[in-house]
Amino acid sequence: MWSGLSGFSLRRLLIGSPLATAQLKHERLNKVKALAVFASDALSSTAYATEEILLVLILVGSAAVQLAWPIALGIAALLAIVAFSYYQTIQAYPGGGGAYIVAHDNLGQLPGLVAAAAILTDYVLTVAVSISAGVAAVTSAFPNLYPYRVEMGLALIAIITILNLRGVRESGTIFAIPTYFFVTMTMGMLGVGLYRWIAVGMPPAAPPRIDYPAAHPLTVFLILRAFSSGCAALTGVEAIADGVPAFKPPESRNAGRTLIAMALLLITMFLGITFLSHQFGIVPDERTHETVISQLGRVALGDGTVLYYLFQAATMLILVLAANTAFADFPRLSYFLARDRYMPNQFALLGDRLVFSNGILALALAASILLVIFQGKTTHLIPLYAVGVFLSFTLSQSGMVAHRLRRRGSYWWLKALISGFGATVTAAVLIIFIVTKFVYGAWIVVAWIPIFIGFFLAVHRHYRAVAAQLSLEAFGSPPPVRRHRVIVPIAGVHRAVIAALNYARSLSDDVTAVYVETDPNETPKIRRKWEEWGDGIPLVVLPSPYRSIVGPLVEYVDRIDDRQRRDQVVTIVLPQFVPAKWWHHLLHNQTAWLIHLAFLFRREVIVTHVPFHLRGNHR
Amino acid sequence: MWSGLSGFSLRRLLIGSPLATAQLKHERLNKVKALAVFASDALSSTAYATEEILLVLILVGSAAVQLAWPIALGIAALLAIVAFSYYQTIQAYPGGGGAYIVAHDNLGQLPGLVAAAAILTDYVLTVAVSISAGVAAVTSAFPNLYPYRVEMGLALIAIITILNLRGVRESGTIFAIPTYFFVTMTMGMLGVGLYRWIAVGMPPAAPPRIDYPAAHPLTVFLILRAFSSGCAALTGVEAIADGVPAFKPPESRNAGRTLIAMALLLITMFLGITFLSHQFGIVPDERTHETVISQLGRVALGDGTVLYYLFQAATMLILVLAANTAFADFPRLSYFLARDRYMPNQFALLGDRLVFSNGILALALAASILLVIFQGKTTHLIPLYAVGVFLSFTLSQSGMVAHRLRRRGSYWWLKALISGFGATVTAAVLIIFIVTKFVYGAWIVVAWIPIFIGFFLAVHRHYRAVAAQLSLEAFGSPPPVRRHRVIVPIAGVHRAVIAALNYARSLSDDVTAVYVETDPNETPKIRRKWEEWGDGIPLVVLPSPYRSIVGPLVEYVDRIDDRQRRDQVVTIVLPQFVPAKWWHHLLHNQTAWLIHLAFLFRREVIVTHVPFHLRGNHR
Repeated sequence: MWSGLSGFSLRRLLIGSPLATAQLKHERLNKVKALAVFASDALSSTAYATEEILLVLILVGSAAVQLAWPIALGIAALLAIVAFSYYQTIQAYPGGGGAYIVAHDNLGQLPGLVAAAAILTDYVLTVAVSISAGVAAVTSAFPNLYPYRVEMGLALIAIITILNLRGVRESGTIFAIPTYFFVTMTMGMLGVGLYRWIAVGMPPAAPPRIDYPAAHPLTVFLILRAFSSGCAALTGVEAIADGVPAFKPPESRNAGRTLIAMALLLITMFLGITFLSHQFGIVPDERTHETVISQLGRVALGDGTVLYYLFQAATMLILVLAANTAFADFPRLSYFLARDRYMPNQFALLGDRLVFSNGILALALAASILLVIFQGKTTHLIPLYAVGVFLSFTLSQSGMVAHRLRRRGSYWWLKALISGFGATVTAAVLIIFIVTKFVYGAWIVVAWIPIFIGFFLAVHRHYRAVAAQLSLEAFGSPPPVRRHRVIVPIAGVHRAVIAALNYARSLSDDVTAVYVETDPNETPKIRRKWEEWGDGIPLVVLPSPYRSIVGPLVEYVDRIDDRQRRDQVVTIVLPQFVPAKWWHHLLHNQTAWLIHLAFLFRREVIVTHVPFHLRGNHR
Repeated sequence: MWSGLSGFSLRRLLIGSPLATAQLKHERLNKVKALAVFASDALSSTAYATEEILLVLILVGSAAVQLAWPIALGIAALLAIVAFSYYQTIQAYPGGGGAYIVAHDNLGQLPGLVAAAAILTDYVLTVAVSISAGVAAVTSAFPNLYPYRVEMGLALIAIITILNLRGVRESGTIFAIPTYFFVTMTMGMLGVGLYRWIAVGMPPAAPPRIDYPAAHPLTVFLILRAFSSGCAALTGVEAIADGVPAFKPPESRNAGRTLIAMALLLITMFLGITFLSHQFGIVPDERTHETVISQLGRVALGDGTVLYYLFQAATMLILVLAANTAFADFPRLSYFLARDRYMPNQFALLGDRLVFSNGILALALAASILLVIFQGKTTHLIPLYAVGVFLSFTLSQSGMVAHRLRRRGSYWWLKALISGFGATVTAAVLIIFIVTKFVYGAWIVVAWIPIFIGFFLAVHRHYRAVAAQLSLEAFGSPPPVRRHRVIVPIAGVHRAVIAALNYARSLSDDVTAVYVETDPNETPKIRRKWEEWGDGIPLVVLPSPYRSIVGPLVEYVDRIDDRQRRDQVVTIVLPQFVPAKWWHHLLHNQTAWLIHLAFLFRREVIVTHVPFHLRGNHR
């Protein structure tokens, strides 16, 4: 029997038994659960956004970290604008207004594909960044684990992948735990920290714990670079707008209120962390690799306390959950693209467990590669991140402007104005982002997105061409077969050949056996046996001075086959013995397959395999 | 068109154009050329044999190196005995008396296979040891290259492999150059060295240049271990006996004389190197990794002189040539074994360039793996080497005894006595070798040889079973086909399906189309189109709640196929579209191949592919 059984069992163990299509169902979420499901990506970015601002500012020396606060305020204002724009989108697209759909519907194919490429790329980066940051939360608490961060990250991706292949339904209850755990811990930490700061009489900000010398002059470019680093806080804001249909009715209203709640939470946490870090003189520590938020946790909650470790656990969990949301979103968007014929068909297939397995695997692979290349360092990934987010923000808001202009409706001019303002602001940030981060890695994404779009278009063109060629429109049925020539290549005269000849004769009276002669000394023996067993079927011997089997056969069929006659068919009947054990394949030249492959791409020749099964139990 | 073109061109460039079988021819060698061709392996071992003795002796301290001389004399005596035994073999087997043939003919299947396993293993080690030692000749002259020895060794193996795949005929003239170059340089070096020693009044041996402390007590075991290390000098002595047919007539006489010349040269060079090394106080240097023979060269020819560098070049060249002989011998023995059905058939196939390409590649791969594992260190490979040589010596000499006892002839008892003596001595050395080197690596070969033999026997059993099952002895022709059921699995209704149906109808009136329903919403559309285009052929719809295509199809065929009726045939006709470019394959689920594979191992079902070629030029 065929092998692969052991691999199959392992797969069963990890992934579970297949599920029937009828088991596919959807859960509707209330606002509390929806916030947990859709907000983890956005909220989790507070774990690294402040640090990314500080990492740029310390290049100008420790004194520059006071600039973090105004920059954070600017980012919070941007967040408010973007959230308000998405609030509009939710009202207009109660069916789920992902940037791909909004841009495709309102702006056309190409903007839609740009948005799709940007978002898919960003999902990959969401996984890589969130996992890196999640591992950093662990290594901040246990610095000894720092050298194993890539391995830990890969293990986390593997676990998330397996869970998703099994099919984690977006079960609000389970997802609610890490999100609210993180919100509670962070808010608590900020509360305690603020209390301590007030208790000591609200002193001016402490001097930075580490004295970084000024390596760069303070320039507008550098401030903009710090600002764009902090914009990582905005990633994930679009999630609610994408997921409106998952809300309980009235969907738009519930989604809108959840978006407002999320934006308020995000702004509070981000500003709180930035403010307290500054007050306590916390700066990134490049020797211990401890994160800023972990340092803040030690100060506010007490070094080595249970509360501190719980805070680190909460940070890690929400970041893993954020990565997990990409595992739901990437395959879903891939499915939309495959359905629209922009991605390979395989991404539209439901796997054993009713999930889009190929999308899940593609995402896991891409994110793992990024994790290895960038050695699990969040800050090295940040310049690649958020390019896609702001590109899709801009396209989606521009799409909304076009939507309003076309549809009109009440206060359409005001709504168009709001979306237009959002589009302008995010476009400006996108340009700032690309300019300030270009040499630090943004160029990779800028170069990659056109390649990705080219791929979408090539796939699309191919599928359209295939559909046109297969179409039965204006298709006259082919003429019935009048002449059926059957060719049986033989390598000897034995039972497998006799079985093939017997079958060939049942197909047609026009059967020819062909022997490719690689060693002329063998030919007389073959001819002798043929006289006894060939049953009158003509045997053609093709000399092969270069010992190729396939070459002379192809040439022979080329000679005898008249391509002009549409009512003539040539069938190659291949005797093929099938070994009983898989490793026995290695003991036979799989000439039948080679012959098949050789004809496959060349000609309209039909190839038939007549199997002869060898028994396994020797003696 | 199919890809692989670029790979194919690279292959052409490296390997050359195919050669016609008729171009296969053999060159007959005179004694001078034959010595060069067959003696390189044996003579080259003088480059490391002395050093291997010394490396064991210095464990007992520097003073013990004086024991090298008596040990070398013992090895020289052993060499004389073995050479004399082989001289006998040459007379008895003018057709080429390799140990596999002699043992197989006279002692039976199993001893023959033991000899084959031993020799094939030793060919791999010949390559690994010779290449390591050849690289050591280079790194002795240029110590800076020592860290790159593995890479240099792999590069040398790659070059030899490519040359052999192109087909280096055993062209005596080219091969004569390195062999005689080495013999001349070594004899010259020994002559100059001896002259210098005599010129200074034949002083007693100088104290060893490096003072090694005594780490071990001097035991008989250690002396035997040093002796068996030195036995590496005997490897390659069998080459002339294996190659008798390549000599000009009278083959046996010419081969016998060449053997004597080789043995005399080998003994002279080995004893000369050992003697002078001792006189000049040369011991292995574990810090510089410089070889003993290179140190001797520096003393005799002068450090940094052109002559010294020429001597190192000669050493390197003959060692590479020794490795190259294994590239001729390993594929030839593999061919004999494949012809006798002990190795996979692929080893019996002549490649494009009339060489046994698979054997060459297998040898190169195995030797490269050894080189990497043992980090290109000759001395680490030595304990594995020569086990096979002495095992095959013993078997071949024992075979000669059996041969004499059976055939008799003039002085048969004397000849049997000589061979018996040779067998006894080599068996004793084999035991010494295994006992003294067991823990240092000989166990690997001792464990490996039975595994290898088990492989031979399993392959042999398989081929015999296949031959029995294919045999036409007592075979009644199968009954003609009376009922031919044709099944056409369809995934939609389009031109490719219509083409397949048209063909199916030409085979039989009993055609059924089968549609596997993974999404019940699609079925009505399929049925509607079927009414228009199905042309009266029944359409069976198989529900597939788990979305598997293959499973329901196999079950259906199981249901309808009556295995009892030998005159019934079931053919699966698969519509298959063939993309125009190879990468387009990735855009289609290759369901046709999956269905074929699923049926291949299960049942006597015939599978037919009806190709539908897609055009490449879109629009």
